[in-house]
Amino acid sequence: MKLNCDLGESFGAWTMGQDARIIPLVDMANVACGFHASDPLIMTETVQLALAHKVAIGAHPAYQDLAGFGRRSIHHTPAQIKALLWYQVGALDGICRAVGGQVSYVKPHGALNNDMMKDTGLLLAVMEAMAGFRPDLPLMIPATRQSERHKELADKVGVPLLFEAFADRAYDDDGQLVARSVPGAVLHDHQAVLEQALSFAHKGGVHSISGQWLPLQADSLCVHGDNDVALAAVTAIRQALGRKQTDVQ
Amino acid sequence: MKLNCDLGESFGAWTMGQDARIIPLVDMANVACGFHASDPLIMTETVQLALAHKVAIGAHPAYQDLAGFGRRSIHHTPAQIKALLWYQVGALDGICRAVGGQVSYVKPHGALNNDMMKDTGLLLAVMEAMAGFRPDLPLMIPATRQSERHKELADKVGVPLLFEAFADRAYDDDGQLVARSVPGAVLHDHQAVLEQALSFAHKGGVHSISGQWLPLQADSLCVHGDNDVALAAVTAIRQALGRKQTDVQ
Amino acid sequence: MKLNCDLGESFGAWTMGQDARIIPLVDMANVACGFHASDPLIMTETVQLALAHKVAIGAHPAYQDLAGFGRRSIHHTPAQIKALLWYQVGALDGICRAVGGQVSYVKPHGALNNDMMKDTGLLLAVMEAMAGFRPDLPLMIPATRQSERHKELADKVGVPLLFEAFADRAYDDDGQLVARSVPGAVLHDHQAVLEQALSFAHKGGVHSISGQWLPLQADSLCVHGDNDVALAAVTAIRQALGRKQTDVQ
Amino acid sequence: MKLNCDLGESFGAWTMGQDARIIPLVDMANVACGFHASDPLIMTETVQLALAHKVAIGAHPAYQDLAGFGRRSIHHTPAQIKALLWYQVGALDGICRAVGGQVSYVKPHGALNNDMMKDTGLLLAVMEAMAGFRPDLPLMIPATRQSERHKELADKVGVPLLFEAFADRAYDDDGQLVARSVPGAVLHDHQAVLEQALSFAHKGGVHSISGQWLPLQADSLCVHGDNDVALAAVTAIRQALGRKQTDVQ
Repeated sequence: MKLNCDLGESFGAWTMGQDARIIPLVDMANVACGFHASDPLIMTETVQLALAHKVAIGAHPAYQDLAGFGRRSIHHTPAQIKALLWYQVGALDGICRAVGGQVSYVKPHGALNNDMMKDTGLLLAVMEAMAGFRPDLPLMIPATRQSERHKELADKVGVPLLFEAFADRAYDDDGQLVARSVPGAVLHDHQAVLEQALSFAHKGGVHSISGQWLPLQADSLCVHGDNDVALAAVTAIRQALGRKQTDVQ
Repeated sequence: MKLNCDLGESFGAWTMGQDARIIPLVDMANVACGFHASDPLIMTETVQLALAHKVAIGAHPAYQDLAGFGRRSIHHTPAQIKALLWYQVGALDGICRAVGGQVSYVKPHGALNNDMMKDTGLLLAVMEAMAGFRPDLPLMIPATRQSERHKELADKVGVPLLFEAFADRAYDDDGQLVARSVPGAVLHDHQAVLEQALSFAHKGGVHSISGQWLPLQADSLCVHGDNDVALAAVTAIRQALGRKQTDVQ
Repeated sequence: MKLNCDLGESFGAWTMGQDARIIPLVDMANVACGFHASDPLIMTETVQLALAHKVAIGAHPAYQDLAGFGRRSIHHTPAQIKALLWYQVGALDGICRAVGGQVSYVKPHGALNNDMMKDTGLLLAVMEAMAGFRPDLPLMIPATRQSERHKELADKVGVPLLFEAFADRAYDDDGQLVARSVPGAVLHDHQAVLEQALSFAHKGGVHSISGQWLPLQADSLCVHGDNDVALAAVTAIRQALGRKQTDVQ
Repeated sequence: MKLNCDLGESFGAWTMGQDARIIPLVDMANVACGFHASDPLIMTETVQLALAHKVAIGAHPAYQDLAGFGRRSIHHTPAQIKALLWYQVGALDGICRAVGGQVSYVKPHGALNNDMMKDTGLLLAVMEAMAGFRPDLPLMIPATRQSERHKELADKVGVPLLFEAFADRAYDDDGQLVARSVPGAVLHDHQAVLEQALSFAHKGGVHSISGQWLPLQADSLCVHGDNDVALAAVTAIRQALGRKQTDVQ
């Protein structure tokens, strides 16, 4: 079970996150590509940081919306989505090519991620974009009750999938994340976060917020290092899971 | 002698240029990369247009300045310049990888081009960026009296050079373009443009605005297709030079 | 019956529309405010053009989306919508204050306009923003079957309304514009456009696409001057309606 | 002697500064206007914060350069500079009109400020823009050896001036700030900062870095609250100067 984290989300004079503190703890760095956050220099420095810590580099493409941090849905045609992905993944790949390393996977960000999980046509456009760019490049999507169906679609298109789960978020009985507005949606208790991480890692699922067992196969856990509490939880998960793994597949 | 032209300079709902009319006449398409013009979908369509006409695809990276069309100098450190180039060339390369074809050369746009021709430190950063990205990727710069010196610098860094000249602009005795504000700076006469093009192609230079012979070796002529007069001149040059050549080197 | 037109939609080096040709024909200029089109200098020049032709100046605020020309829905909270309107209307007002004239009305653009006509909460936020900015400043919205209800809401908030109709678009029986994808949605016939304009002006409504009479009271007709055919239709409407009126209320 | 501080420099999801901690200590808030930092909602919240603390609201307009935080020179014509100022000052004024209060002065930001202090043509454009917008609106510029000359120019154009000085920066013998790269350019010592502030307030000048007495009349001291040390220095200056003054002139 690998740990992935969104990184390189600063922009120009603005700093976000604590990249230098979280990177020693994770296996996979989802690097912002300039459309919701980051800029060419920050992307370059983030790639260098990832390489120094032997962390796999993933592209984290998004809708073009710096003001909204890529968290707002913006309608795109399939042709626009493909172009948007090629552009951003290509930009990060260009930096990797120059600095060393390569893009090892792609994880869409924010509203683009949410939208494609609700709209099969959009998901198909994302998959086709990936297969067109490089057929062996895995797409990371959330593990859900529909994972099998998503796997079939991906096989048809010819794009490998990676499934991610969340250690600090409650799931409903349908395998969806409980909305943040609902009490109990976010696990703040250190021990509870660790237990959920280990449940995904060792039991292949978690108990939903209602107590029902939810089988969810995940390849990677998404973690955050925004504050000291979050960092402590990631440290505990890291120790429990053992040393870092650096091969994506 | 090849003909190159700036293409893909529309943006969102705004159209610029007559790409479909000029592309049959040229050998090399300088494709805007989203920083001074274009967007991912327009870049994709421009690459498809270039491929359909067997025109070589060049990246046309710029300072990030849509409002100023990349024509205004903006100070960058060498590290910023490199990241900016890797990002934009990589983005176009990502699109080419998906659509077919590849980036065959890089020609900096507007103020970035002007600035690097005045500031050797900046030119060195551009060259080092190119060599880091792909050592066989040629950089296109204006042919000047300093071409030999630029060639030596490029050899040291390890980047191939392509020199371009202008058929419709007068040169001063130093081999610089005469400023547009000076009378006679822009050749409007059809025959004069054609003669200057053929002079570059067959005699390896032109007469300066003062009448002095100016030896300037050029690999490519930059042409424009913004209006019917310009298109007619390019058509005449094309006919005089013979059919299109599609290999960059 | 006044004629209004979207103007000042160029951006930086990109030109859109034929402002100088359409402005002599209209009474009201909807001036883009830099979020979907235009920039400070183009806004200034557009205000100067409107003043020279004694055309009323309206703010045409939009979602911040140059790449999508403000035509894509982007979710905003009521607080964000208000701030967005104050910013854009204030910016145009600042230019008017310096150049002469003033903002005489506000007409939301594109997706913001569509969204507020579907979402009463959003429309309320727009109205409250207007009343907060200047209580006598009219809001222009499309004339629909719900015009009475919208009038009541506006009275409650304390913002004057102006209703606009379209001369070149077919209406359905509910008083909505027929989607552009439906055959017959856009009137291309010169005479048909003129007749629809006069029907709004003199009969207080039009026949819907199915032939049903649709009473729709409008204060202004939205016209376009993008091409010669459109300009000819506007010229005919202008002649039939008589000379320009310049007072908004 | 009033204290002014740059505020509202967050942008979208990115936070900058500690506005809530510094605002109780200052008299004047230089509010970013969306071109180098801030967005409409952050501007609205900053104006509300300033009003709650009875702090005068100043516009802090800049070159349009979020990626460079307005710190990079970008060439503008006088017409562009005027439009840029009217747009940004008007936008903040629109927010003030809706929320309460008004723009009480204008202080150009970053590179725009630096450039206008070196280029009289640019300074003249700024002054003319201000006078066109509202003739009683003061322009805040750095106090220098040229303050008298600037005053004469401003009188001719008809714009009031406010002069600012810096408590934590060393001055050279010409009355210019010592470049940050020079040792001793930034005063880190708490007591030294306080003494320089009081010297400006009570003696009408400071000693330059070489020890020479430099008479510099200032209306306001620019302070920063980015970190705990800076905040402590501002607290000490505030106490030494006495309670806040809220009238700009």
